[in-house]
Amino acid sequence: MAARKIIIDTDPGQDDAFALLFALGSPAELDVIGITTVGGNVPLALTSRNALQIVELAGRSDIPVYAGCPGPMVKKLKTAEYVHGPTGIDGLEAPDPVTPLQPQHAVNYLVDKIMAEPEGDLTVCTLGPMTNLGMAMAMEPRIIPRIREVVLMGGGFFQGGNATPAAEFNIFVDPHAAHVVFESGVPLTMASIDCTYTAQMTPEWINTLRAVGTRSAVQAANMADFFRRYGSHKFPTEARPIHDACVTGFLLAPHLFQQRLCNVSIELMSPETIGMTVVDWWHVTGRRKNCNVLGRIDSDGFFALMLERLSTLP
Amino acid sequence: MAARKIIIDTDPGQDDAFALLFALGSPAELDVIGITTVGGNVPLALTSRNALQIVELAGRSDIPVYAGCPGPMVKKLKTAEYVHGPTGIDGLEAPDPVTPLQPQHAVNYLVDKIMAEPEGDLTVCTLGPMTNLGMAMAMEPRIIPRIREVVLMGGGFFQGGNATPAAEFNIFVDPHAAHVVFESGVPLTMASIDCTYTAQMTPEWINTLRAVGTRSAVQAANMADFFRRYGSHKFPTEARPIHDACVTGFLLAPHLFQQRLCNVSIELMSPETIGMTVVDWWHVTGRRKNCNVLGRIDSDGFFALMLERLSTLP
Amino acid sequence: MAARKIIIDTDPGQDDAFALLFALGSPAELDVIGITTVGGNVPLALTSRNALQIVELAGRSDIPVYAGCPGPMVKKLKTAEYVHGPTGIDGLEAPDPVTPLQPQHAVNYLVDKIMAEPEGDLTVCTLGPMTNLGMAMAMEPRIIPRIREVVLMGGGFFQGGNATPAAEFNIFVDPHAAHVVFESGVPLTMASIDCTYTAQMTPEWINTLRAVGTRSAVQAANMADFFRRYGSHKFPTEARPIHDACVTGFLLAPHLFQQRLCNVSIELMSPETIGMTVVDWWHVTGRRKNCNVLGRIDSDGFFALMLERLSTLP
Amino acid sequence: MAARKIIIDTDPGQDDAFALLFALGSPAELDVIGITTVGGNVPLALTSRNALQIVELAGRSDIPVYAGCPGPMVKKLKTAEYVHGPTGIDGLEAPDPVTPLQPQHAVNYLVDKIMAEPEGDLTVCTLGPMTNLGMAMAMEPRIIPRIREVVLMGGGFFQGGNATPAAEFNIFVDPHAAHVVFESGVPLTMASIDCTYTAQMTPEWINTLRAVGTRSAVQAANMADFFRRYGSHKFPTEARPIHDACVTGFLLAPHLFQQRLCNVSIELMSPETIGMTVVDWWHVTGRRKNCNVLGRIDSDGFFALMLERLSTLP
Repeated sequence: MAARKIIIDTDPGQDDAFALLFALGSPAELDVIGITTVGGNVPLALTSRNALQIVELAGRSDIPVYAGCPGPMVKKLKTAEYVHGPTGIDGLEAPDPVTPLQPQHAVNYLVDKIMAEPEGDLTVCTLGPMTNLGMAMAMEPRIIPRIREVVLMGGGFFQGGNATPAAEFNIFVDPHAAHVVFESGVPLTMASIDCTYTAQMTPEWINTLRAVGTRSAVQAANMADFFRRYGSHKFPTEARPIHDACVTGFLLAPHLFQQRLCNVSIELMSPETIGMTVVDWWHVTGRRKNCNVLGRIDSDGFFALMLERLSTLP
Repeated sequence: MAARKIIIDTDPGQDDAFALLFALGSPAELDVIGITTVGGNVPLALTSRNALQIVELAGRSDIPVYAGCPGPMVKKLKTAEYVHGPTGIDGLEAPDPVTPLQPQHAVNYLVDKIMAEPEGDLTVCTLGPMTNLGMAMAMEPRIIPRIREVVLMGGGFFQGGNATPAAEFNIFVDPHAAHVVFESGVPLTMASIDCTYTAQMTPEWINTLRAVGTRSAVQAANMADFFRRYGSHKFPTEARPIHDACVTGFLLAPHLFQQRLCNVSIELMSPETIGMTVVDWWHVTGRRKNCNVLGRIDSDGFFALMLERLSTLP
Repeated sequence: MAARKIIIDTDPGQDDAFALLFALGSPAELDVIGITTVGGNVPLALTSRNALQIVELAGRSDIPVYAGCPGPMVKKLKTAEYVHGPTGIDGLEAPDPVTPLQPQHAVNYLVDKIMAEPEGDLTVCTLGPMTNLGMAMAMEPRIIPRIREVVLMGGGFFQGGNATPAAEFNIFVDPHAAHVVFESGVPLTMASIDCTYTAQMTPEWINTLRAVGTRSAVQAANMADFFRRYGSHKFPTEARPIHDACVTGFLLAPHLFQQRLCNVSIELMSPETIGMTVVDWWHVTGRRKNCNVLGRIDSDGFFALMLERLSTLP
Repeated sequence: MAARKIIIDTDPGQDDAFALLFALGSPAELDVIGITTVGGNVPLALTSRNALQIVELAGRSDIPVYAGCPGPMVKKLKTAEYVHGPTGIDGLEAPDPVTPLQPQHAVNYLVDKIMAEPEGDLTVCTLGPMTNLGMAMAMEPRIIPRIREVVLMGGGFFQGGNATPAAEFNIFVDPHAAHVVFESGVPLTMASIDCTYTAQMTPEWINTLRAVGTRSAVQAANMADFFRRYGSHKFPTEARPIHDACVTGFLLAPHLFQQRLCNVSIELMSPETIGMTVVDWWHVTGRRKNCNVLGRIDSDGFFALMLERLSTLP
């Protein structure tokens, strides 16, 4: 079977970096045809630079990187340097990227590429605020039925939120873009924090990764160490979720994830709850089940697979 | 130590009946000085009648019962016969009550009694929509600093809701009353469905209760059987939570409950999330921690205690 | 024909004082059977005291005055000393009232009196936040079909608001109470600021009133002078609306008012527009026309009538 | 002085047609460098076709026309065939356009053109939902300080709305785009229905226009006749506003318009009021005055000028 064609929309972010490296280390299954960047964890100039550094780290500077929207569709941007450090991928030691960004805007790239590829071929993975994809759908709705699936990291319901009591960061930053995508009718799979919290990266696993000894593995381990220590103080152990990497994990090994088809709506109207992913777990609203909601991960299987794939990179 | 003086505001409901019987079976610790009723699970005429039947079942027709508001402060009433059956306490076989309701409106009773009792003496337990207490606080705010504590069954966060995807029934029915109470500054303890779902009544426990053989125990077992079989089809086993009884359980044995002081706000602004109890679990809003949020229950301890106390009733 | 029985719910306020005096000067048409007070323009202790001073000024200390809710049903109270001065009726020189307040709470008085009077006899006029009436309807909905009509000063649509860009003060202060009344099904007549701005009190009229020479007339003129000069700086001339008096004017001479039956809903959901009276002027929503919306006043006729009636007081 | 460079973003609409013809008839003052279309009054395919027909009617097929977004940024599109007829410009008799649409998307054209023109040179006029401009600002915020002014037809405050009781059609259709533009910091002039209702086109004026005898004048008169008769039944006389033409009128002769600098915010949060332009007429919010709000028009001057300019077209 041919590798599945994906575009990764991302705002690296150490966990975005893991998602990217995990995908780039899995060329038999995943054909990353392009990367698009968005303002999110850190501003767009940094997420774009970071994406270039990561493809270069993986020896894949052939993959084109397109910068997209610097901020959300409707709201003002909030960034999360308090989680990721000032660069977004603190922990990485890497030279300035030599590959240039593509001249085209990511939103136009998404529109053009989705229209150009055969219908139903392309999967779009969003690891940050869903701005670029929401904008592309608003600019050119004909892309909607051509997308095979959108797999996103974002949202949370049974865990509450991490940006506000009710909302997870990626959806909170651009709830309107998320709303556009969730209401579009496109097939959706959501790796929310309810899912990602069930696969936590331990110091031991990070050490095993570092021991692989390749430059990619060592640098990934460095980022993981920074990410694990900085930012979130709410976890009882030293292990930490590596959110975005779950998207890649799902694409490679969906059997590792509990899954349930539900209606998910994006809350837009209340200052208290804006950006919440309201999961109709018991189907009480009767609305169309628009989203494959990922649940508990087989954590051992997940980390074993990620280790294997990261080890293949230079 | 003298028994703790409590007023129970209730909309029976089989689980309200358990909360009441559990309290009435614990006279050494709890002095139930009055019962107030509200429209909720079923309309007010039924909840009032049901409350009278339950005090008579417990042989405590000396406890005055006051009917309160037939519906919420601001919204229209929604009832839940689909959970409780048409009477609200289906399963109970009991004669019509012979004790009359008190002539005074429950809201006035709450105001007068709280003003009359020594400051800080009285605890108010709400087992249904918080209408009567919210109304009393709006009519006479001087009651607020006189209340020792409000212990409520309502809300839910990590479980989502049971009335809508985001909101639990009691809070959803009258979110404005809940808002008044939560913003009042009164000490609050909340037994949400996140808590109540952790202590589920099994068929075996119900059988043990029935085997006690007293009229109260048999009728309680009958109500429990109805409640367990009817209504909620979302539970994977045959066990069911007995929500309101957790309020009594907490008053008697707080050590059986995980507890965490948090800010809880009541969502009023969005059609999607109205009635949600937004728990600021990680204190990200910086708001005053206004609520003792109950978590996991020591289920065995809880049911052992409830069995013991129900067994003391006639 | 017998005089129309009315209860006036008020938060004096100089314009409330005019509404009261105007009514008390019209005993052939209006039988003011009671006055209830609410926290609004100034706190409840002051509005209650002010109401007593005004009935004494009019020589009508036989009319019972009942203090009601100190603040709104759900929100926190905002007062308007910047409009009315620190007492609420600055300009008035009058001794401390000697008449006591009635012991009963205004909400209970409303419930009891409306239940006691023949169905359809009693009109309730609200000149401030609609808290007391909203509370009474929530406590005892059976009063709703017994009320002949509610005539209120509040709201605004074509003029925008005066408390926020979209909301008028009385409705803004307690939008939930207004919502309860507007959704209750009771017949409603609304004198909004769209109406009240069309009858402005001029310095000349005030002088004519003062020249009447009675104590009531002189003190009313003093209050009017204060009210005219203080507070609202947005009017292009020296004339000012005397809002609440329009309610009395309507009861006495409805032919002086343009009228249109419309649906009016009270906006509760947005921080920007909460408390707005959304008038469906063109019936685009198809909702029941629940409110007689007053428009332009025959200003000359209105002020001539008010002068005549105020002149009859001592 | 050189003619002012403008891009007109439009969803024709008979009144859009008047705005366009009025501008095209004023080449000394207005240099229409491009026209962009949006889904609004009718779907995008029709508004695009209609724009081409109008430039051809005016003999100006040299002006490039770019099709933009088919629907709003976040909401679903609502069209208004009940106002404009099924084509959007019913009344016009004109051949199919022979000029093609430009291949570039209107949003990209806006971004590229605004970035290419000297800073502060270009004025953008929006006559329909503000989707294209809002999208352009979200894609490339660097355009914001380069725009000289945005002049829009939309909103309403003192008149209420025409799409809902509180909201005018153009803003109601895409309130999120309007919000983006209103919050962007760009200089704004708003011709709301409060303004446009003050210049109503009479049957006599239409006859005078028809009597000019040119094809443009006759076809404009035909569209005006359709627009006047169809749709809005709420006006007491036979005259009708010609909303969008006020934008051109303001650009040509601002002295004909009352103007007031105010804060205007776009309501997004309430189902009742979404899409309302909340005008802080009395500056009570203290927010930055972001919008020149147009008021009463010198109607005679306006229609005289429009007649003169329409008469110059072929």
